[in-house]
Amino acid sequence: MDKIRKLDVEEMSELLEQHNFKQLKEGLESMHPVDIVDALDELDKKQRTLVFRLLAKEEAAEVFTDMDSDMREDLINSLTDSELEEVMDEMYVDDTVDVLEEMPANVVDRLLMVTDEDTRKKINALLQYPEDSAGSIMNIEYISLRKEMTVADAILKIRQVGINKETIYTCYVTEKKKLIGMVDVKDLLTAGESRKIEEIMDENVLFARTDDDQENVAKMINKYGLVAVPVIDHEDCLVGIVTVDDAMLVLQDETTEDISIMAGVSPNEDSYFGTSVFQHAKNRSLWLMLLMLSATVTGEILGYYEEAMAVMPVLITFIPMLMGTGGNCGSQSSTLVIRGLAVGEIEFRDIFRVVFKEIRVALVVGTLLAVVNGIRIYIMYDQNLLLAAALGITMISVVAMAKCIGCILPLLAKKVGVDPAIMAAPLITTILDTCTILVYFNIVTAIFHI
Amino acid sequence: MDKIRKLDVEEMSELLEQHNFKQLKEGLESMHPVDIVDALDELDKKQRTLVFRLLAKEEAAEVFTDMDSDMREDLINSLTDSELEEVMDEMYVDDTVDVLEEMPANVVDRLLMVTDEDTRKKINALLQYPEDSAGSIMNIEYISLRKEMTVADAILKIRQVGINKETIYTCYVTEKKKLIGMVDVKDLLTAGESRKIEEIMDENVLFARTDDDQENVAKMINKYGLVAVPVIDHEDCLVGIVTVDDAMLVLQDETTEDISIMAGVSPNEDSYFGTSVFQHAKNRSLWLMLLMLSATVTGEILGYYEEAMAVMPVLITFIPMLMGTGGNCGSQSSTLVIRGLAVGEIEFRDIFRVVFKEIRVALVVGTLLAVVNGIRIYIMYDQNLLLAAALGITMISVVAMAKCIGCILPLLAKKVGVDPAIMAAPLITTILDTCTILVYFNIVTAIFHI
Repeated sequence: MDKIRKLDVEEMSELLEQHNFKQLKEGLESMHPVDIVDALDELDKKQRTLVFRLLAKEEAAEVFTDMDSDMREDLINSLTDSELEEVMDEMYVDDTVDVLEEMPANVVDRLLMVTDEDTRKKINALLQYPEDSAGSIMNIEYISLRKEMTVADAILKIRQVGINKETIYTCYVTEKKKLIGMVDVKDLLTAGESRKIEEIMDENVLFARTDDDQENVAKMINKYGLVAVPVIDHEDCLVGIVTVDDAMLVLQDETTEDISIMAGVSPNEDSYFGTSVFQHAKNRSLWLMLLMLSATVTGEILGYYEEAMAVMPVLITFIPMLMGTGGNCGSQSSTLVIRGLAVGEIEFRDIFRVVFKEIRVALVVGTLLAVVNGIRIYIMYDQNLLLAAALGITMISVVAMAKCIGCILPLLAKKVGVDPAIMAAPLITTILDTCTILVYFNIVTAIFHI
Repeated sequence: MDKIRKLDVEEMSELLEQHNFKQLKEGLESMHPVDIVDALDELDKKQRTLVFRLLAKEEAAEVFTDMDSDMREDLINSLTDSELEEVMDEMYVDDTVDVLEEMPANVVDRLLMVTDEDTRKKINALLQYPEDSAGSIMNIEYISLRKEMTVADAILKIRQVGINKETIYTCYVTEKKKLIGMVDVKDLLTAGESRKIEEIMDENVLFARTDDDQENVAKMINKYGLVAVPVIDHEDCLVGIVTVDDAMLVLQDETTEDISIMAGVSPNEDSYFGTSVFQHAKNRSLWLMLLMLSATVTGEILGYYEEAMAVMPVLITFIPMLMGTGGNCGSQSSTLVIRGLAVGEIEFRDIFRVVFKEIRVALVVGTLLAVVNGIRIYIMYDQNLLLAAALGITMISVVAMAKCIGCILPLLAKKVGVDPAIMAAPLITTILDTCTILVYFNIVTAIFHI
């Protein structure tokens, strides 16, 4: 079979320079919109507009939908109103809404001007749903059937209206606009033509409400392996569907958000490069400031043990190792628990099981680290067995404490309704730094009577 | 509309105790297999077997597929051979393979014994694909069409064989087993009945090969918004499809793996509770050991500046704050870059753009932290302006260094083919601890001439 003949950026530039638009157009026809966007990304603004103008209408709408907002804004500024109108006509309403939400006001005005009255009404309805709700990501083009229809009627309807729908894989049965069942296209094709829809429809429909959180809707699609989930409004009327490809993007964005928070960065919706330097700085400063100030507490405590360190200067050299190990142990536990909570594998009621597991893991890991470290100290510090033992006891205590705090804090956060991801490495490490210093100096001052 | 009438665990237990199997059976019929598994999870072994026996054949197969391996093993041990045979008959071959791969040898033997010859051959073929390859997760039930068929022929074929296929949404066109095109079921329904498949098929098919990495296949499905991708073997013959629901699970597992590595935990395939204490300890010890030993280097360097600290004991108190801030800044940058690389937003060729951005962010963030910290020191340490200035300079230097190292290391790792996730918080923090101490003491010894 033929592999997709992708034009690469060099070929595109070359064809553009040669003004060989015919061949370029042919090449573009066999490319996937997503790949065209990748290629446009590497061309300059003028070349982009030229290439975009060569695209077939439907293709152009898909490419326009897949672009990032910067590229889109540039392009809008270089297109004429009638060109823009053609693109907007071909786009799905929900995609148009996504585009509008990202554009500055003057561009939005221009886009709405070239949109017909009917679409404008639909757009306004969609714009009213809260951000990150099922209503804001749903698709309003779907196939709805009535229960009195026969299978043949239903197939005829799909034939007539299906061409403009994003998905026809599942059709929804409504009665006075209320959702009463669903039929998979597989069932339509495999059932007898004269059978009634109400005989073959599945009444147990999983559905979402317009104001449900988009993340929960995406998780539902993932959990039950669906291709789409219907969305109903406050009056139980079917108003749209959320499809699996949108769900995948939502889950990816939510994971990126979680990972950002876990690294002590306030998440924002824009991409790395799409975020300005000041926004980046703002997103990162809050946590850094908080952690910096709380680290001064650790510093003050350290200052409090100045005398002990003056008596036994060697004690200073173990601080980075103990603080590092404590922080790492704690963040291992908290990360595993945070992820477990995110994918639904761990719940708050598992807290005792988790703590029991972590304590046992801590004893194994702590003993291992204590022994290795003990041997090193015994060899490097003139066979000082007492020092090796003191550090060994400290190590086991620090590891056990770190693992406990590391697993309990995310679970408690979840319980009180705070995002568990906040309890990841940065915060855990800072808390543990203080605890480690306290444990360490209490143990060594007791053992060495200082 | 009716919400799905879910039986909860209490109701199930009650119905079981009352031996009210009729009502229990009815309740189970309207439940989704995934929810039945959730409920079974909370029942005891004996109750589980009772409930499982009440399920309709197809439902039982789906429930069996969705269980975790421990529950499945328990159940297999309490079912008779003929019961097991019924379940196995209803399962998709690729799901059977997934089940077999997780079971101990004696259970596998028993399962294969109740499987018919034909299915056994298919199972053996699938078992030969390498772990984590497209071949190992693909589905071998799909609809294949020939290009000479008319649309009416194609629909007839779906009607006849479609009922046993996991998805009929996209059909594949083959010639001598080789993949030559694809037809969406939407196109079949909206095209004229007498049209030939070759007229309406799309020849630009995105496909995967059996030995492609499952992660890349899942990313392809995500990137292009597909419901399935066909898989071809070394001779370009179509052998299976990977569906979007499997892709979602693959991406979720890969993200969990990334997050584990980013927390310094060697990833494994099992769940948190499914992993034994010793395995957990093993997964975490390697990194802890490595980081502990490298932290001793930081300790030694700290020991080297003992005299400076003896002259100015106050210097000790700033160490946790500087090390903490350096580590946090570095892990912020590395995490954002690692995630950007994972979702394909950042590539190695962007290295200069990234470094330039991070340096500017570092200057803004560093100055802010330096000023706040400077004011605190000025107030708390008898208006010692020189000390405040020295710490300010150190702070800006540490933040800039941390952001640079934090963004460069993951990019370099990607370049040389190492998983960038390794360059996350634990390693970055340990490297930065050493660098921070060196920068700090070089600056303060120069300023205070000690």
